[in-house]
Amino acid sequence: MAALPGPLRGIVPPMVTPLRGRDELDVPGLERLIEHILAGGVSGLFILGTTGEGPSLSYRLRREMIERTCRQVRGRVPVLVGITDTAFVESVNLARSSADAGADAVVVAPPYYLPEAQPELQEYLDHLVPELPLPLFLYNMPALTKVSFELETVRRAMDNPRIVGLKDSSGNMIYFHRAVGLLHHRPDWTLLIGPEEMLADAVLAGGHGGVNGGANFHPRLYVELFQAARAGDAARTRRLHALVMRISDNLYHVGRHPSAIIKGIKCALSLLGVCDDFMAEPFHRFREPERQRVRDLLQEIKSETL
Amino acid sequence: MAALPGPLRGIVPPMVTPLRGRDELDVPGLERLIEHILAGGVSGLFILGTTGEGPSLSYRLRREMIERTCRQVRGRVPVLVGITDTAFVESVNLARSSADAGADAVVVAPPYYLPEAQPELQEYLDHLVPELPLPLFLYNMPALTKVSFELETVRRAMDNPRIVGLKDSSGNMIYFHRAVGLLHHRPDWTLLIGPEEMLADAVLAGGHGGVNGGANFHPRLYVELFQAARAGDAARTRRLHALVMRISDNLYHVGRHPSAIIKGIKCALSLLGVCDDFMAEPFHRFREPERQRVRDLLQEIKSETL
Amino acid sequence: MAALPGPLRGIVPPMVTPLRGRDELDVPGLERLIEHILAGGVSGLFILGTTGEGPSLSYRLRREMIERTCRQVRGRVPVLVGITDTAFVESVNLARSSADAGADAVVVAPPYYLPEAQPELQEYLDHLVPELPLPLFLYNMPALTKVSFELETVRRAMDNPRIVGLKDSSGNMIYFHRAVGLLHHRPDWTLLIGPEEMLADAVLAGGHGGVNGGANFHPRLYVELFQAARAGDAARTRRLHALVMRISDNLYHVGRHPSAIIKGIKCALSLLGVCDDFMAEPFHRFREPERQRVRDLLQEIKSETL
Amino acid sequence: MAALPGPLRGIVPPMVTPLRGRDELDVPGLERLIEHILAGGVSGLFILGTTGEGPSLSYRLRREMIERTCRQVRGRVPVLVGITDTAFVESVNLARSSADAGADAVVVAPPYYLPEAQPELQEYLDHLVPELPLPLFLYNMPALTKVSFELETVRRAMDNPRIVGLKDSSGNMIYFHRAVGLLHHRPDWTLLIGPEEMLADAVLAGGHGGVNGGANFHPRLYVELFQAARAGDAARTRRLHALVMRISDNLYHVGRHPSAIIKGIKCALSLLGVCDDFMAEPFHRFREPERQRVRDLLQEIKSETL
Repeated sequence: MAALPGPLRGIVPPMVTPLRGRDELDVPGLERLIEHILAGGVSGLFILGTTGEGPSLSYRLRREMIERTCRQVRGRVPVLVGITDTAFVESVNLARSSADAGADAVVVAPPYYLPEAQPELQEYLDHLVPELPLPLFLYNMPALTKVSFELETVRRAMDNPRIVGLKDSSGNMIYFHRAVGLLHHRPDWTLLIGPEEMLADAVLAGGHGGVNGGANFHPRLYVELFQAARAGDAARTRRLHALVMRISDNLYHVGRHPSAIIKGIKCALSLLGVCDDFMAEPFHRFREPERQRVRDLLQEIKSETL
Repeated sequence: MAALPGPLRGIVPPMVTPLRGRDELDVPGLERLIEHILAGGVSGLFILGTTGEGPSLSYRLRREMIERTCRQVRGRVPVLVGITDTAFVESVNLARSSADAGADAVVVAPPYYLPEAQPELQEYLDHLVPELPLPLFLYNMPALTKVSFELETVRRAMDNPRIVGLKDSSGNMIYFHRAVGLLHHRPDWTLLIGPEEMLADAVLAGGHGGVNGGANFHPRLYVELFQAARAGDAARTRRLHALVMRISDNLYHVGRHPSAIIKGIKCALSLLGVCDDFMAEPFHRFREPERQRVRDLLQEIKSETL
Repeated sequence: MAALPGPLRGIVPPMVTPLRGRDELDVPGLERLIEHILAGGVSGLFILGTTGEGPSLSYRLRREMIERTCRQVRGRVPVLVGITDTAFVESVNLARSSADAGADAVVVAPPYYLPEAQPELQEYLDHLVPELPLPLFLYNMPALTKVSFELETVRRAMDNPRIVGLKDSSGNMIYFHRAVGLLHHRPDWTLLIGPEEMLADAVLAGGHGGVNGGANFHPRLYVELFQAARAGDAARTRRLHALVMRISDNLYHVGRHPSAIIKGIKCALSLLGVCDDFMAEPFHRFREPERQRVRDLLQEIKSETL
Repeated sequence: MAALPGPLRGIVPPMVTPLRGRDELDVPGLERLIEHILAGGVSGLFILGTTGEGPSLSYRLRREMIERTCRQVRGRVPVLVGITDTAFVESVNLARSSADAGADAVVVAPPYYLPEAQPELQEYLDHLVPELPLPLFLYNMPALTKVSFELETVRRAMDNPRIVGLKDSSGNMIYFHRAVGLLHHRPDWTLLIGPEEMLADAVLAGGHGGVNGGANFHPRLYVELFQAARAGDAARTRRLHALVMRISDNLYHVGRHPSAIIKGIKCALSLLGVCDDFMAEPFHRFREPERQRVRDLLQEIKSETL
């Protein structure tokens, strides 16, 4: 375990889960990946989120992933574990495994099969939190869960000291500004942005950092962008943001679907020799033409000085 | 195990899961419920679907539910088990538990966290079916899974003899007519409709029956409606359909959300003394005002002769 | 003017608007089209609806279309005119032109730019009806207008004797059944279905007929299907419905967009020598490959006896 | 006519249309409104857009609005006129009226009844632009038009020198960043943001300004925020942005629907004695409780120094 600062500032990469097969971790790849990311100066690691393909993995593998990650990190940064599940009991089980392994916090999006009304979501949090051995971050991801943590639900969650932050992946900048407007209620609350294209905006708006997929393969870039934006260095912010946009345009839109982002990141990591790019079902790694585009992009980025 | 006819005709209720607590079956309630439903003349039982709150239950409880149901049914009708999951491996695990317990088939909707394109969904089926020890029904439920089994995917699935049918809960009558139009490719294929308000339409259109929630508490009504529509008895079909519409208007719209249908069915079963109406998180049973409305409806229905 | 029966039973084709150019009617084509349709035994004509490309036409052309249609029809069947508009005043203007030309009723969908809440939609009807010189049909088309006439709004509209019916193009069969359930409040109310794939279902459910695009080029087929369903002739209903499905599968899905239906109908009419297939901006007629598919379909249909 | 700079930088308020009745301008209110806005230092006026209730007004009134506005402005700033319409011919007619009255540019969103595919939208622009006597801005407003100007369509439009800019009201910050990424193709292209909550983000990202509804009643605030962001004055940007957020939270969320923004702005203008708050059908002005909330907000804002 690491100390979990409140707020947690900086880049907390949503780490991919390196796989060798349908139910098998790429263990050496995972170890290399963690070292690769930590070397970039990140402030934490978030595992088993959307980018981590959490909901696509067996519970056995999720537990293995939690244990191996915590063991490898050894408290150098806080480890946050995604426990989003349609089954309440399985979320609690994952949270217990996380605490046992030495993780620092858990992260939950709304149960995503039957949609809940906001009062139901509030009651869900009321029931969930007492069962959790670790502090909780909320994860707003309506494109995938169909249901948002609406701002009155976030405001109400702030009254519970065991809920410590919000990761917003809605892509809705107005929502994010409103979430910033709630921060004065809880000085220790952490507010992070998901889409890396909005990292600079989020920091300038008063957010604390980003949970940005690209930080898996180029952690330093996102850390530097965060720091430039936080320091108010407009020229440097603009330059690094432009590089992030180039990655986004080339890496995440090779395919047309949300899974394309994960495929792109895993492909880049594979090309860098960090880990395997095997995807959990029902998705599959990029084939050679897309892989070539990622190779070209990496070449291009490499020549850029940060 | 029962013989699984091809096609499977009639009413296959999507059975609710009677609960006494967050992770505890109402075992006597389950036994009574199964007998209550079988006494109504149904053609099968579908457990752990949407109405069965499958995705909201722990895996332990799902396995217990499979075993107890199969033991109680004792092959009197086929038992179909929902194995829909975001994790491929867990779907396969559930299918193996189903086969071990003596179930007859499994049912799968598209993995519902990250949305797939149709080619990915086709590949998913290609990979899943060889791992399954039981025949497979497809379950089209786009309102909850975000992704449809589009008709070209259904057509392609018909080439695989291990895939034996489709339950359509899209509510889209044009889709259903198109699905009927595919039946000549596979004379043994089963085509069932989800929404009970469309049961008569579906049978008149050439479908084989319904997976209708209301058959949990009034199985005879749905069986009779199915038979009337199949026999071409227009007057009787219209009268029974009107009764189904009255149930739908009063029972499923007490609340505003999809979960209201399940709450309404469980409430009716509780009032009839069949089983508990405890709901899996994050939902909760009806309170007294809604309960009174359901009580009134049941009184009203009781006086109707079928 | 014709007598407007209440309810209006049978087929009321949503007539296409034959064009020779961006702002020019194909006048001889229009005359032939009207005679072609009337010869099929239809119960009315609905002009300037979705299939009539109403919202895409200049007001000048819409007025010309109203006048020429009424003149050509000469009271042989009722003429219904679409006055759906985002501007209240223009809807009223169109209704006045319709009355002046001798039309029998007007048809309105919700204003479709800024979405209204249902109370606003109810007030809109309260304000609109007194300004209209003709009886009003409601037109439920949420895929295009974003807003539905929800059933409580329909129920409330039934209290106004100047509102005389509902055309439902939602494709939602449960909605249609609920709308049938309201008919006892107004014995003169007309309930028609839009999608022709659902015509048989709608009549069997207790609806009064259809506003079906295919009746532009093959009016007799839809009239016969309506009559077969109404007479309870199940075998004949099934056979004619299958033919309608074949048309739908081949004609309306040549392209992928809602406009494909209109393009398909106009293409068929052009191949039959009835009228031009020019489309209002921003759409364009089928090119040769699609045209060939429509030609093949027409050939196929021709050989079928009704 | 004014000189239309390329790019057009600063605040271009989407002016409301002051009404006294369903088809009657509040003429003195309009004159006061224009002077009130121009006194705030804005860079242009955009009339007959969404906030201007353009699609809800009769063509007669739209023409009167164009003429009176151009006459009152007398070339002090460029006047942009919304010509979005489902009917191509009516858009062209409005553009001609705009040119005759001395307006400087026209603005078009995708035709919004039948949805177009992007190639159809591109062809639409290809056909529209040659008919227009004035330069054209694109207006991206998918929540209301259902169809976006996707970025490849924008990129292609940049090849046409008669198309001079884009107003983005999607609320999608990633889209906006991508649109900024296209600016190097056309140094004279104007890129403006719709939602005022994103004005600071947009300017920091490289956009040229905003078309922000709040600038109707407090133009100076938005002009100052634009200037602060452009000058890189982070502290001042943050302070003024917070004030804009306070307005947004209190003024635009009094009601729940998109029309609430327009009602809120008109209510504020009415309280300030600038113009009437009559709304075009089917909407209605705020009633006293909401009006009181707006009154309180104005009082609060008044005490703030910019």
